[in-house]
This record gives sequence, C-alpha cells and structure tokens, in this order.
Amino acid sequence: MAVPTTEGQQMRIGELSRRSGVAVPTIKYYLREGLLEPGVTRAANQADYGDAHVKRLRLIRALLDVGGVSISAARDVIAALGRTDLEPHDLLGVAHHAVSPTRHPDRDTDAWRDARAAADQFVAERGWRVESNAPARDQLADVIAALHTVNAPEILTELDAYAASALSLAEVEVDNVIARGEPVRMLELVVLGTVLGEALFAALRLLAHEHASMVRLGARMIR
Amino acid sequence: MAVPTTEGQQMRIGELSRRSGVAVPTIKYYLREGLLEPGVTRAANQADYGDAHVKRLRLIRALLDVGGVSISAARDVIAALGRTDLEPHDLLGVAHHAVSPTRHPDRDTDAWRDARAAADQFVAERGWRVESNAPARDQLADVIAALHTVNAPEILTELDAYAASALSLAEVEVDNVIARGEPVRMLELVVLGTVLGEALFAALRLLAHEHASMVRLGARMIR
Repeated sequence: MAVPTTEGQQMRIGELSRRSGVAVPTIKYYLREGLLEPGVTRAANQADYGDAHVKRLRLIRALLDVGGVSISAARDVIAALGRTDLEPHDLLGVAHHAVSPTRHPDRDTDAWRDARAAADQFVAERGWRVESNAPARDQLADVIAALHTVNAPEILTELDAYAASALSLAEVEVDNVIARGEPVRMLELVVLGTVLGEALFAALRLLAHEHASMVRLGARMIR
Repeated sequence: MAVPTTEGQQMRIGELSRRSGVAVPTIKYYLREGLLEPGVTRAANQADYGDAHVKRLRLIRALLDVGGVSISAARDVIAALGRTDLEPHDLLGVAHHAVSPTRHPDRDTDAWRDARAAADQFVAERGWRVESNAPARDQLADVIAALHTVNAPEILTELDAYAASALSLAEVEVDNVIARGEPVRMLELVVLGTVLGEALFAALRLLAHEHASMVRLGARMIR
C-alpha cells in the first residue's frame, strides 16, 4: 500500500475528523483495520496527518457507504490502487472480488449444479472470454437457481436483453478507461468504475423502472 | 399476509427442514420474525407444516441469499405478495424499498445537495416520471457525490449510456410483467423481478466486464 505523502497542511486527528467528516473513533477503527496509514508520530499518543489522509478517508467512505463493499474488500481495493505491478485486466479480479456478494446460497444441490451448467452454456454461447473459475459464473448460477426455486423462470426470458445491456455498458466502461492512457489512472478507474458503477446502475435501474411502470401500468390503471 | 394452506403432505419441523434445506433453528428464527406462518398445532410444542411452508422457505432463502435483502425487507416483500389490493405500480414501492441499500452516506453537506440537484436535473431532462421523493433519486445523488469525492467525475460521462441501458431493460421487464395478464402473478413478477433482477444484472455485468476487458485490454497487453 502506498504511504500517503504528508505534504501540505499537517493536522491532529481532531482536525482530520472535522475536515473529512469522519468521527474520531471511526478514524481509529480504520487505522486499526489497516485501511488508513498511520500519521507521523510527534509525541506519545500524538500523530500528525496530512491531506493524503483526508483524501483516503473520502475514498474509504465512498467505497463503504456508496459502493457497499465490506471492510476487508475495501482494504484489498485500497492496497490494489497503490500497486504498480498489476495490469488493468488483472486488477479487475480485485474489483470483482470487492463487489461480489458475501452471501452464501446453497450450492451443494443438483438444482444448483444444473443452474451452473446453464450459466456456463450461456457464457459459451455468447463467446464471452471469462475464466472458468470466475466468481460471477457462480453468481449467475445462484440467480438462475433462485428463479427456478421461486417458480419465476419466465424472468429468465429477459436474460438476452440483460446480457446485451451488460455488454454494451461494459464496452463503454472499458473504452472510457483506455481513453485515459495514463496507467495509474486507468487502474483507479477500473476499480472505482466497477464498485461505484454498480451502485450507479442500480439507482438508474430503479428510476427507469418507476418511469416505465408509470407510463405503461399507470396509464393502464386510469383507462 | 396470506396464511399458507396446509393441503398435501403434513410434516413435523424436522421433515420441513430436510425438505427445504433450511436448518431447524433458522426455521424457528423465521417463525419468530414473522417471515413464516406458524404450523398447525397438534400438541404442546408440536406443530404440523405443509407444502406451502416448504415453498415459503424457498422464497425466503432466494430473497435473503440471492436477492441480498434484509430480514425486515423480506418480511415486507412477503406481506406485499399476499395482498390483493395493491396495483402493480404501487407494489413497485415495496420492491424498491427491498432493494434499496440500508447504508447511510452523509447527505447533510452542500456537496451532496448539489449532487441531488444534478440527479433531479438528470431525471427531468429525460422526462422520466418519477416521484419527487423516490429513494432512488437520493441513491443516484449518493453515487454522483461519491464520484466527485473520489475525484473520478469522468465516470459520470457514462451516465447517458447507463440510463439508456437501464431504460431499455426496465421496458422489457415491465412488458414481460404485463404479458402475464393475471393480476396476482403480475404482482409476484414485479417484486421478484425487481429483487432478483438486480442480482441477475450484477452477475451479467461482471461477466461482460471481464470479457470486454480481456478483448480490449488483454489484447493490448499481448501486442
């Protein structure tokens, strides 16, 4: 993990709290969890922090509060952002890990294995180049199995529309990253785009859902 | 909430656990939390359960494990599924509540209020008919504010592409619901489609992301 530079204004933890909007006990928690680098020790029980700490705290809050990632996933993301030896594509693994749900559906059933086979077939039919052990394959199988479980397999008829949307979005995102050119910035955008892009799409989907429902079902009710 | 019918095979809680794959203590927890209707009491400390309980337990697991909703949101969803007085569009509110994050980003800042104004303008420019107090407006503002906070506003250039994808998906979903015709089934599909559709798209987005990255960045590395 890159050590934050301490250039610019130096401050005590109280001032760091005020400027970042993060409570002092929470800052201490992030220090213990290794999300935030220690300040420069000035005396016993006293450390100075810099602008890099303010910036880091804002990133942590964005990842946790808006991206919805866990503390340990946030730690991995932050560590990855400081590495210069990873190619953008490799970094995707870190970002995907961060947004993968920590829930554990039952995967030890024949029904789930059928769903996983269907997920693999779906990926293969599209010619998508995805590692055979990618966690997203299991996630897709989880949803396919769940839709059968709750007797709503007709939702799977939307799979092609979902996949086409997902692919066109992914291409826009990847092109946007490539357009930056500068490697370190590309890495940051891959990670932030994956984590915050998920939250962005989720919000837009709800808005679009309400609009489409109002236009089509709302009109239907009035008629 | 509709009382599950007890037709078909009657069983004790141990058999219910075996058939549903849900551990007995977990079943008891769902009973206490009101997610699962009590069985029919046969004697002190003994109740019989039916097929409806097995079906309900599968729905609960799908909502919690795959949809990622909270216990209280699952309770609301299940209660809504049993109501016959809600129009599909009204039910969207329940479904949206279920998938809305329980996280609480700081919304008491000028930066956040600017982001919320930008979110409102974004919705207005598209002519989307969305209630002014819809939680998804706040969610969109959360992400816009976070992207500025982490100094990645260029991701917002993808907003139009995201919105177009979200809208075309929402139209497919709503049309799919309307095509069912049968009101009770329409309600179920609105709720299940909202909750599990989010998990479905998230999985497909990661798969598409990996594919697009491999094709464009992977090729770039080899070159």
